[in-house]
Amino acid sequence: MMAAQLREDEIVARLAEIVAGTQTHRVLVGIGDDAAVWQPSRSHRSVITTDALVEGIHFTSETMSPYDVGWRTTIANVSDLAAMGARPVLATIALGAPPGGIESTIDVYRGIAASAKEYGMAVVGGDLTRAPVLTVAMTAVGEVRASNLKLRSGAREGDVIAVTGPLGASRAGLDVARGAVALQPPEREQALAAHRRPIARAREGRWLAASANVRAMMDCSDGLSTDLARLCEASDVGVIVESVPVAACAREAALALGHDPETYALAGGEEYELVVAVRARAFDRLAQRFYARFGSELVRVGVTRSEREIVRMENGAESPLPRTGWEHFGA
Amino acid sequence: MMAAQLREDEIVARLAEIVAGTQTHRVLVGIGDDAAVWQPSRSHRSVITTDALVEGIHFTSETMSPYDVGWRTTIANVSDLAAMGARPVLATIALGAPPGGIESTIDVYRGIAASAKEYGMAVVGGDLTRAPVLTVAMTAVGEVRASNLKLRSGAREGDVIAVTGPLGASRAGLDVARGAVALQPPEREQALAAHRRPIARAREGRWLAASANVRAMMDCSDGLSTDLARLCEASDVGVIVESVPVAACAREAALALGHDPETYALAGGEEYELVVAVRARAFDRLAQRFYARFGSELVRVGVTRSEREIVRMENGAESPLPRTGWEHFGA
Repeated sequence: MMAAQLREDEIVARLAEIVAGTQTHRVLVGIGDDAAVWQPSRSHRSVITTDALVEGIHFTSETMSPYDVGWRTTIANVSDLAAMGARPVLATIALGAPPGGIESTIDVYRGIAASAKEYGMAVVGGDLTRAPVLTVAMTAVGEVRASNLKLRSGAREGDVIAVTGPLGASRAGLDVARGAVALQPPEREQALAAHRRPIARAREGRWLAASANVRAMMDCSDGLSTDLARLCEASDVGVIVESVPVAACAREAALALGHDPETYALAGGEEYELVVAVRARAFDRLAQRFYARFGSELVRVGVTRSEREIVRMENGAESPLPRTGWEHFGA
Repeated sequence: MMAAQLREDEIVARLAEIVAGTQTHRVLVGIGDDAAVWQPSRSHRSVITTDALVEGIHFTSETMSPYDVGWRTTIANVSDLAAMGARPVLATIALGAPPGGIESTIDVYRGIAASAKEYGMAVVGGDLTRAPVLTVAMTAVGEVRASNLKLRSGAREGDVIAVTGPLGASRAGLDVARGAVALQPPEREQALAAHRRPIARAREGRWLAASANVRAMMDCSDGLSTDLARLCEASDVGVIVESVPVAACAREAALALGHDPETYALAGGEEYELVVAVRARAFDRLAQRFYARFGSELVRVGVTRSEREIVRMENGAESPLPRTGWEHFGA
């Protein structure tokens, strides 16, 4: 049977098959009824988030395959859960398929299923409609122990600001994918992978959330400069940015494009490192334990201060740090 | 300030203001963080559903205002929860705004906020992106006592199939809105209201779910003929359809268009009556109590049988009932 001639229920059944492997015993009713049902455990909080990817806005068929679109949709949602300290439980998907786009729809679901399985998240249902372009909106629900919940608003004056890894790789991958810059292996592959198959700091988020010395946490999926401004606004503090960890491929891409690497990395969106505000006297010990646990650095970026402005410290001089990250409705 | 020049956070803040009135004490974290957090009560199940409306597919600017689009998105989701027997708790929204569409985006949120408040549901967050056309995907979470949960799969041979109200009004409203048919007042207004400002059978759903004699329940938002086929498939039964309750405005529209009114009503989608399978010997008493409680009829449509086919009984003769409802990927 031609895919284009499949009826809706048959397509849904095919999609259900694809995500069947992601179901867990926690899910009481999955795809196939009006709604999905699950049972949260008693001592935990449930957390819900939604992230959408739209063709022509967040990706094009040149820069990402449908499978990668599904993959990144999951990561964007799991990263939001991780930023709260939550463990992913389940997700629903609203998928808009363009004319003749059933095969790519199925590939999107494959990418979703693979990534959801990776993070132990069940895909329990959703809505499938036609749409002018490929549109994927996922809602994910997670759970977190009440005492571990981390918000953006918990940072206090003098806290250390740190990130879970170097930045800018996804932006470099986008620049490679759209032909703006040419990188050599292995940087080329690292950049493309960061853009197309990012990872979410799910384990890191839960681990950091368990520490009382971590006072605020969020992800920096819209770029560190933009998301740091949001954290500061929520916590009513400013930040002195001392240094920005730049991924090797991002450094190469920036230099090839004639940009300052740190500025390039500060503006990079679509990446999923976590940003934390840590009680200053506890930071060194926490970073050591983080390294021992995950084999990667919790990188100090700067320190919060009471003046609300975000400034960058270079060669002993302060300059204001503009928001240069992803703005969905920017000019 | 011109709306088109608003920055994303400012737009989100404006949208957050609009839905501020829908928040409840159950919501621990709403709009403004990476994710929203709530605490389900211990003896209940949580239920989650997603429904999306896409411009050019589910509506056009001629047939529905942005406010009505928001309204109907809520109803579609609340109806799915009602069909499980669940009470709405909260919702998230992924909204794709077309170029220059910020004002209509805000109107969509107004419609969502008004309808969500009507059903006691908090809007706790979401994702706002650009998109080629107005696209609204809502995910709603509800709660239901474990013993009250109703699925599509519970119907047994000999059960009475009934619906919570007459059908076809929304289809008539669409035909009026796009100028296919002209109706006189008050049928004209009834038809348009059914299409643009439908109601969900939320209280009815919870009430029906509390009866052990109701064995299966779903909504008929894709049209009774299509959704009845889904209920039969899930329950492994067939149905003899004896009669179909047709809304007065739908009857007029059908006759004006030269259609059989029952056939017209069977194919009507985008309406939110509930379909139930009730233990036969309990039906009359349940329908009486339903009328006493809600002042409207629980209307008998037919009876299930072991042969899987769905047939329509007219003048003592059976004929197969084709699926004529809404097919998102139909030819």
